[in-house]
Parts: sequence; C-alpha cells; structure tokens
Amino acid sequence: MHIILLSGGSGTRLWPLSNDARSKQFLRLLPGVDSLQPESMIQRVVRQLKESGLDADMTVATSLSQQDSVISQLGRDVNIVTEPTRRNTFPAICLACEYLSKEKGFGPDETVVVMPCDPFTEPGYFEAIKEMAAAVERSAAELMVMGITPTYPSGKYGYVVPDGEEDGVIRVKRFTEKPDVATAEQLIKEGAKWNGGVFAFRLGYMTDISERFVNAASFADIRNRYEDFPKISFDYEVAEKAESIGMIPFTGEWKDLGTWNTLTDELKIQAYGDVTLDGTGKNTHVFNELGIPMMCIGTENLVVAASPDGILITEKCKSENIKQYAEILKTRPMFEERRWGFYRVIDHTESPDGFCSLTKRLTINPGCSISYQRHFCRNEVWTFVEGEGIFVLDGKRRPVKEGDTVVIPLGSKHSLKAISSLTFIEVQTGSNLIEEDIERFDYDWEE
Amino acid sequence: MHIILLSGGSGTRLWPLSNDARSKQFLRLLPGVDSLQPESMIQRVVRQLKESGLDADMTVATSLSQQDSVISQLGRDVNIVTEPTRRNTFPAICLACEYLSKEKGFGPDETVVVMPCDPFTEPGYFEAIKEMAAAVERSAAELMVMGITPTYPSGKYGYVVPDGEEDGVIRVKRFTEKPDVATAEQLIKEGAKWNGGVFAFRLGYMTDISERFVNAASFADIRNRYEDFPKISFDYEVAEKAESIGMIPFTGEWKDLGTWNTLTDELKIQAYGDVTLDGTGKNTHVFNELGIPMMCIGTENLVVAASPDGILITEKCKSENIKQYAEILKTRPMFEERRWGFYRVIDHTESPDGFCSLTKRLTINPGCSISYQRHFCRNEVWTFVEGEGIFVLDGKRRPVKEGDTVVIPLGSKHSLKAISSLTFIEVQTGSNLIEEDIERFDYDWEE
Repeated sequence: MHIILLSGGSGTRLWPLSNDARSKQFLRLLPGVDSLQPESMIQRVVRQLKESGLDADMTVATSLSQQDSVISQLGRDVNIVTEPTRRNTFPAICLACEYLSKEKGFGPDETVVVMPCDPFTEPGYFEAIKEMAAAVERSAAELMVMGITPTYPSGKYGYVVPDGEEDGVIRVKRFTEKPDVATAEQLIKEGAKWNGGVFAFRLGYMTDISERFVNAASFADIRNRYEDFPKISFDYEVAEKAESIGMIPFTGEWKDLGTWNTLTDELKIQAYGDVTLDGTGKNTHVFNELGIPMMCIGTENLVVAASPDGILITEKCKSENIKQYAEILKTRPMFEERRWGFYRVIDHTESPDGFCSLTKRLTINPGCSISYQRHFCRNEVWTFVEGEGIFVLDGKRRPVKEGDTVVIPLGSKHSLKAISSLTFIEVQTGSNLIEEDIERFDYDWEE
Repeated sequence: MHIILLSGGSGTRLWPLSNDARSKQFLRLLPGVDSLQPESMIQRVVRQLKESGLDADMTVATSLSQQDSVISQLGRDVNIVTEPTRRNTFPAICLACEYLSKEKGFGPDETVVVMPCDPFTEPGYFEAIKEMAAAVERSAAELMVMGITPTYPSGKYGYVVPDGEEDGVIRVKRFTEKPDVATAEQLIKEGAKWNGGVFAFRLGYMTDISERFVNAASFADIRNRYEDFPKISFDYEVAEKAESIGMIPFTGEWKDLGTWNTLTDELKIQAYGDVTLDGTGKNTHVFNELGIPMMCIGTENLVVAASPDGILITEKCKSENIKQYAEILKTRPMFEERRWGFYRVIDHTESPDGFCSLTKRLTINPGCSISYQRHFCRNEVWTFVEGEGIFVLDGKRRPVKEGDTVVIPLGSKHSLKAISSLTFIEVQTGSNLIEEDIERFDYDWEE
C-alpha cells in the first residue's frame, strides 16, 4: 500500500507566517507528542500515519518551491515528486502515480491512497483509510472515497451523496461541489458526507487514466511533458466520471486549520517566541518570529503574528480577511527553510541610482552544504559569526570559522560546507538581487 | 534674556519608540507646521519659542546620552550643557547657569527662564513666559513661577498656592507636592494653580545659590565637581526656600503627552510607517519603524508601536502600564540618532562559546564624519550600500563607494567621512560588543 500526500497551497490566509515557500502545513505551531517541541501540520499527519502503521511507502506530491521545506521537516523517509509548474490536483496525482509505476516499478494492482497533508484529525481517520484500502483490495469499487460526517451545513465543502450499501461499502450516487447552505441542509438530511479529498484506488486505474493525456516510456519523459495534463481537479476529472465508487464514512474530529481563527482554537500555547503578556488581556494568541521582544497589554480576541515578512494584528473573528491583503503585502521571501538550513533577510536597500543591497543571516546545518554556484549581478561578502566550515572559491578550499570574512566577487564560483552549525552574515551588493541569479555546478566534497 | 530648556527623561512610558537615548521629546510624531514633516516635542517647543520672539539665547541642559539627539534635531542654533551624570533638576539648572555666567560671560542681572522642553501647549504659554521675565526685570520678585490653571483635581502635579496680588504679580504662599484628589479639590477652590516647572530669575540669584555647593573659577572646574551638588529637585532646593516668589497664571492648553494614550489624542495621523488598516477597525494608532509591512484588521482602541527595540500592542486606556515592563524589556539601544546620522541594529548573535556578532546598518549624513577611533575587542567589516565617502585606516585614506568592502582588524585606527549620504552594513565580531569599547583620537580632515 502506498500513500500519496498532496502538499500545495499558497499560504495567504496565515500571512505573515506563511508564504509561497512556507505554506500553512509547514508552520511548527501544533502541540506535538513532546509538548516542548511543536510540530507542523504535515509533521503531525506523517506521525499519525506512522502511529497507525500506514507509513509503508509515502510519497509527497508538491511544488518545487516547497521541496526544501518537505525535506527539512520530514527528512529523507518520504519520496518527493515535484510538479515542474503548478497545475491542479489531477495532474499532480497522475505524476505521483507515474512515479510509483515507472520510476519505482510498482505493479498496477498496488493499492494507492491519496490524501491532503494537513487535516487536523484523530486516529479514527486513519482507520477509515485502512478500510478504504481493504475495499480496493477486495475490488469492492474502482474508486473509494472517505465521507466525513458533517458537523454543520457548510457551503465551503464538496458533498458525497450516498446510494445504499453493497459489498460492505456505501455506494456513491454523485458528488456535489460547494452547495448553498439550504442545499447543504437538504443533502445532510439525505445522508450526504463531506468530501475530504481522501481517495483510494489501484495504481493501474490511475496510470490508465493518466496515459490518456501523457503517454511516455519513462517518468522523466512524463514529467517533461507535464504541461500536457489539463489544469483540472481530481474530483472533476476522476471522481465525478468514475463508474463504481464506494464510500467509507468517518465520524470524528476533522478540521481545516486554514485561518488564524481556526488554528488558534487548537493551540495549547498562547505565545510563541519572545512575547510578554501582561495578564489583563484575554483570548489573545501571539506569534513572534522576529528577534526582538514583543509586549501585549490588555489585548482581547486578538491574533498578533510577526515574521520577517511582516506584522499582522487582527481581531480573531475577522482574521480570514487577511487573504485579500496578502497579495498586496507580499514581498520577496524574507525567511526560507532550505534543505541545507534556513535564511532570513535582515536588511535591504535600493539607492536612487538602482544599486541594491540585500543582507541575510544564514545558518547551514552540520554536514550540509550549499551548491557550488556563481552569480552574474552581485558580489557577496560573508562574515562568519558562529561555527566552522569549509569554503570553496574558484576551486580552492580553505577552512572558515567565526570571525572570518570572505569576499566573493561577481562571477566567482563558490560553495560552503558546515562542519558544525555554521551561521554567517551575507551582504549582497549589485543589481537585480533575486534568488534566480544563480548558476549551479557539480562539486565533489569527497575529492 | 536666556532660556534654559531641561531635556531629561528615561523614556519608559513610550516604549518601544523611546529609550534612554531617545526620550519621548525626540519622537518625530506631532503634526508640524508643514503637515508632511512631523516634528518632535522639543522641535515644537523651540519652534514656538522662536515664533514668540523668545529665541534670543537658548541653552539645552541635558544628559550625555541625549546630546547627539539634541544636535541632530535642533542643529547648532542652541547651546548644550551636558551633565556628566544624571542627578536631578537642581544640579542641572545650577550647571546651566554657571555655563551662562562663567563660560559665556553673562552678568548677574541677566534674566533667565527655565522650562521643560516637552509641554504640549499653545502661544499663550509663551506670552506668560514674557510676563514672568518682565516681572523679574522690574524686580517684582526674586523668583517667578508659572501657574497653570488646573482642568481637573489631579494628584499627578504639584500646586502653587496664591496669597493675594502685589506689584502686578500674584504672591505665592506655598508649594504643595502631588496631593491626594480631595486635597487637590480644596486647593483648586483656594485658587491654587499647577506647577508646570517654568521659573524665571536673575542669573546672579542662581549662581549665588549654586556657589554655596560648588565654588570654582571656571565652568570646566564646576562641571568636574558635579557630584558635589546634592541630588535634589529645583522645586525643593530653590522654589520652596525662596523668600519672594511671584506667579504669572496661564489658562490654556497644556498637556503632558507622556503616555501612548495622551500622545495619540493629539495626533492627526493614524498610521506612521509601512502600515495598512483594513477600515473595519476604529480608534487605532500604529507606529511602524521596522522596514517590513504591518497590517491591522478590525482592531479597536489599540496602540501598536514597533521599533528595532521591540513591539508593543496595548489597549489604549492601559497603555500607561508599559512603564512597569520597559525595564524588563530593555535591550541594548537598537536605534540611535547621532550627530553624524543614525544607526540601527539589524542582527545580533552570541554563540555558546561567548563569541558575539552585531550587525548594524549605519547612515552618515553628507559632509559628516565619525570620530577617528579604534576598538580592542572586535573586528569590523563594512560593506557600503549607498553613497560615497572617504575611509581612513591607520592614517591611510582611500575613497569608498557603494559595493566596496573594507575590513577593520581589532586595534586598527579608522574613520569615515560621507561625501554624499553614505549607508553601510557593519558586521562586528568578537567579544563584549558594546558602544563603550572605543578609543577616540583627533583627526584632521583638512590636512
């Protein structure tokens, strides 16, 4: 059995903690098993999968921009399939299935479960997944879907409408996308469930559908032709067209922690980071990722969130409104988790003549290295402030440690490997200071 | 006639915008004459003095830590007398009077007016000052005090109790320090006024008193013996002991904008810096001195203030409570206005082995220079990001401009002069990274 976790999202509703590179599923805020170490939504789901014995073979289907966050948070335990461009859930699932089939060599009879990576749910959810997989294995239906028992007539979710039971599974009459509240009430009376985006099928079922759009011999060839897949959701292209669909119901806690309001309801901690609350306020949640103290006096029903991207102060019940502003407030990413560590932008200037500077603080984890690279529009000056490492400039290696400074002229090839956790201040100067001004080369650290 | 402006204060009640180096009187928030250019409390008072024709000879009595802010905000139009250590208003006024007498050579008959540098008041206040000076000149009393007509029975102020009129001035029976509210009500019925700390006298009156404590031939000698003055207020040591005191009343707007609540009442602008308000909130004032966007959604009766020192979110009516936390929240100064420009701390680290780094962004104003200096505990790396200047290292000059990097090893003498406005990123590394690790030398830029 194989699990495909879908990790997407643009991260506008939890600004400024989430952004394109750090969607909500990567925020380490939820109470973990060890309460001292909060975990992210994707870490929580993977932990729950493991606890349920469902971790046999996990593949995360995600975008290039989230790849480093997935590696950083889940390690190398999971397979990662990246979309070359963002298209929708149908192409993403096709690509992941072709990966399992053509890259990993699994046969068409293998059972595959597709699910989102960020539901806030309980163990029963994973038991329902096992039942879905079992139904696929005994061929009770070609496609299985999880039906989540609605707790209110929501217009935000799709509904799965049942049609009697057969072969141990509830037959599905049809899917109904986001209805109005009156229709939702009627659907619930008829026994309809929410569609939580969890599906199970045999691998061959999906590769057959996929190959109608892109048929190539290797996974790499299919990925190269990713643009040939239609931009459409799995629900429309697969679920609504399937001939035989079964549903396994799940009644239990299931939430989309997609807004500050719903997220803070689940948090056991009121303040994250360097925060002082004076004790006269109430129902205030504060997130401070800036390295300076924050003080709240007498605040009520408020969410305060500060990151290098910006600062939000919002009345809790209005927190969903941030969605409409996040695009305007968007800057270049000011914080990113990378496979080698993380960085934060601490200053940037643009002088009237167009000359720019960007100052970052970067930390490389022990044993990790950044790629061997060069830039065409900027010089870089690195001053090491903690740890030890090895620096390479145009092929020449030298050890570096806290207190050292190196100057990297425009066009010079350079790399850096951390021996111990290595932190440095980088001052970039030049024009067009973007992450994309980079040419990468192979470099053999073992040589 | 001479005006002595007292500029002190620790700046805890307007944290995080104010700190020891930037007391509330230096915050550029008040609506200026040109509404596009806000002015600070001290700038407003000096402008009002000039508009009233009272600017003949102004001396600011302040602490060393505020000297650079005074120069930066008032220019070289005013004299500055700095206390070697903070003692109280009596020693500070003695020192300023000795400066006028011994350093500037004014005679004992000159009229002196002492006043705070930060009342929020109207032109009538300055007319009352003129009347006080006139009363001193015609010798109606040895000490004149301004009596501000109370608007409510406050327990926060001292009261001046009258005793009939004589020679065109109201005689003062006694001073009463901060009474309880019932006493204040009774005092107001008897015609008592608030003591706003404005006094007028002849220069010789104060130098006679001063020389009872410190008698020396030169101003420099007196300043060197500053510790010999008692730590006491002018009110206790002079006003309460004076034999002949007259009062000039003032009825008009007069406020101490000492808390976020009282300050924001007077502001015409709701948001300072990069701030977006969603329009569904009310009575919110926001100050953002961090270079990142800030968004407020649906906030009510709130003050939000963010500076490199920290972030405050407070219910307006509870804003005075910050006073008790400011000491705990205090960090090293993260922003300072200096005579040559300003700096901001953008990052700091301390590694487990005690090795430290401090990264600053500094701007030197055109034509200005920092002192020729060296440090004993740190290296510095400067990367210029805007403008042009001249850099000196161990006596050797070289031009510098945006994109250049210079490394200043521990112990090396260095200086920098801006030709155009010059901004650079400084990374300090070493141990004990404090402003006090500095040895200054003379340097002749004309040579």
